[in-house]
Amino acid sequence: MTIISVLYMKSSPHVAVVGATGAVGIEMIKTLEKRNFPVGKLTLLASARSVGKKLTFRGQEITVQELTKTSFAGIDIALFSAGGSISREFAPAAVQAGCVVVDNSSAFRMDDQVPLVVPEINAADCRNHKGIIANPNCTTAITLMALYPLHQAFGCKRIFASSYQAVSGTGAKAIAELERQVDQIVTGKPVTREVYPHQIAFNVLPQVDSFLSDGYTKEEMKMQNEGRKIMHHPGFRASVTCVRVPVYRAHSIAISAEFEKPVTVETARAVLSKAPGLQVVDNPAKSEYPLPLYMTEQYDCAVGRLRLDCALDNGLCFWVSGDQLLKGAALNAVQIAEELLKF
Amino acid sequence: MTIISVLYMKSSPHVAVVGATGAVGIEMIKTLEKRNFPVGKLTLLASARSVGKKLTFRGQEITVQELTKTSFAGIDIALFSAGGSISREFAPAAVQAGCVVVDNSSAFRMDDQVPLVVPEINAADCRNHKGIIANPNCTTAITLMALYPLHQAFGCKRIFASSYQAVSGTGAKAIAELERQVDQIVTGKPVTREVYPHQIAFNVLPQVDSFLSDGYTKEEMKMQNEGRKIMHHPGFRASVTCVRVPVYRAHSIAISAEFEKPVTVETARAVLSKAPGLQVVDNPAKSEYPLPLYMTEQYDCAVGRLRLDCALDNGLCFWVSGDQLLKGAALNAVQIAEELLKF
Repeated sequence: MTIISVLYMKSSPHVAVVGATGAVGIEMIKTLEKRNFPVGKLTLLASARSVGKKLTFRGQEITVQELTKTSFAGIDIALFSAGGSISREFAPAAVQAGCVVVDNSSAFRMDDQVPLVVPEINAADCRNHKGIIANPNCTTAITLMALYPLHQAFGCKRIFASSYQAVSGTGAKAIAELERQVDQIVTGKPVTREVYPHQIAFNVLPQVDSFLSDGYTKEEMKMQNEGRKIMHHPGFRASVTCVRVPVYRAHSIAISAEFEKPVTVETARAVLSKAPGLQVVDNPAKSEYPLPLYMTEQYDCAVGRLRLDCALDNGLCFWVSGDQLLKGAALNAVQIAEELLKF
Repeated sequence: MTIISVLYMKSSPHVAVVGATGAVGIEMIKTLEKRNFPVGKLTLLASARSVGKKLTFRGQEITVQELTKTSFAGIDIALFSAGGSISREFAPAAVQAGCVVVDNSSAFRMDDQVPLVVPEINAADCRNHKGIIANPNCTTAITLMALYPLHQAFGCKRIFASSYQAVSGTGAKAIAELERQVDQIVTGKPVTREVYPHQIAFNVLPQVDSFLSDGYTKEEMKMQNEGRKIMHHPGFRASVTCVRVPVYRAHSIAISAEFEKPVTVETARAVLSKAPGLQVVDNPAKSEYPLPLYMTEQYDCAVGRLRLDCALDNGLCFWVSGDQLLKGAALNAVQIAEELLKF
């Protein structure tokens, strides 16, 4: 990678969204607008088949252009969300052109030269970028929004977690697959599959991403690997089962966390209630707890079901939900871009 | 409770199903027929509003009768699945009449006088009954089908588990609620709720059963409490999050288990492949793992996603699915009745 350290960002940068027509790309454009990001100019880039499509930003139509290695001249910040292979192919060209890349793929996350950032946790790491800053895995980011404040207070040793991941994590085609399968079932037609290896409607699939040789999926190991890097906590251990569920949007994670120091529900609640970007929704008597349906299109994540873990000595059990297209992707990327403006 | 020890069971007993028109009751009737249980006579009992309904058993229609305290004269075995309050009210009368009760509710499970039995695990406990034998919680039974053989081989210290529970666990009304909500969403109508506190269609609810003062639900603590009793393992610890998912039938559980002795995937697989009532479905390269959709109407449970747990030193991570109306309820009850025939 060419190493260019961009120390000062323009106050009204020229921003590009790469993968502009994808589920995350569309949310990136919306989020730039909603958060009044000071976009000087917006360029929308995608593969050849999306060229000519028009997307609206601040009331104006912008025509999608083809992504090429010469697309980045004059662009200050490029938000990439078009998959790892596109990032690997085009991000170095963007950096070469003087652009800072915020990359939503997994391509560079574990690269020592690339900061991996959840701004509420390690915003300062942005300052060490050499042209690329990586956006973490969605399930990891949503989990850490609750886990990191607890880690700061009590010292997290390890977690055991299971996810309930929405189809939007796979992209627009998977949202269409769930809709189509539900329609096929309701109308008594044969169920067809294009995206997932098994029917997702009225089913759950204990597979997200591909398998590693040790039997975990790549998605499952991201929690430990990315968690260590984001929290600056190399001893962090995480055993995770990632499961796709027939929910359209927003992921949830059930977590048992073991800490170095004694923890109580009261001290944990006090810590979590002060955590940025996090709501505590925890009133079991009224059946109030985080629900993916209600977290849809919310910037904040939510934590609830707080209880002392009955199988750990210094442990807390809790449940987190968050919109994976926002905090798990587009919002976090725009927040990183906001950090760049502070340089 | 009146203590009557029924030591010898008739070879063609008169069987009653209490709660015959419920989701589990219907499966009990089907299971008695499919497994050729030597029913001498079948009496179907339910609440007053179901009286007169006809259900088919071995090609003959049987009329549902009203459950009263005098219903049990001449009945040898009564399979109860009508909720805890019905069991508490009527099971003692059944025992008084000389009947052996197999109770699917939670009413008597933790009673020292009542065996709690998964026949593949502790069939011998049936012999100590004093008129009532309890059928365990569905999620617990399905989990233990895989956990107990591993416990025998490696000594289980504790588990961390998260469930993915089908709506059929709540009963026929909940199945109807999911169907109705899906139809409402597909046709653009407002979503209505009758059974669950929140929409279940395209959502997940981190609440099954009511909350205890410690923040766990009753359902969550059944794994530890019932697991200790069934496995004869008073030191067993289980931290569980129980979650309702929009699946019609069959529960799944993601489990991290810690053992006393070293475990490998190979030794665990060898143990599990010999376990009764359990299929090993574990070929990640072909996306083969247990799925609730495929376990529907299966007697066996299935285990897969076997891997060394990366946050435990002697730990195994795995995934179990099973039909909660069958192994989690009706099948297990009929299997207990089969044990009674061996006396």
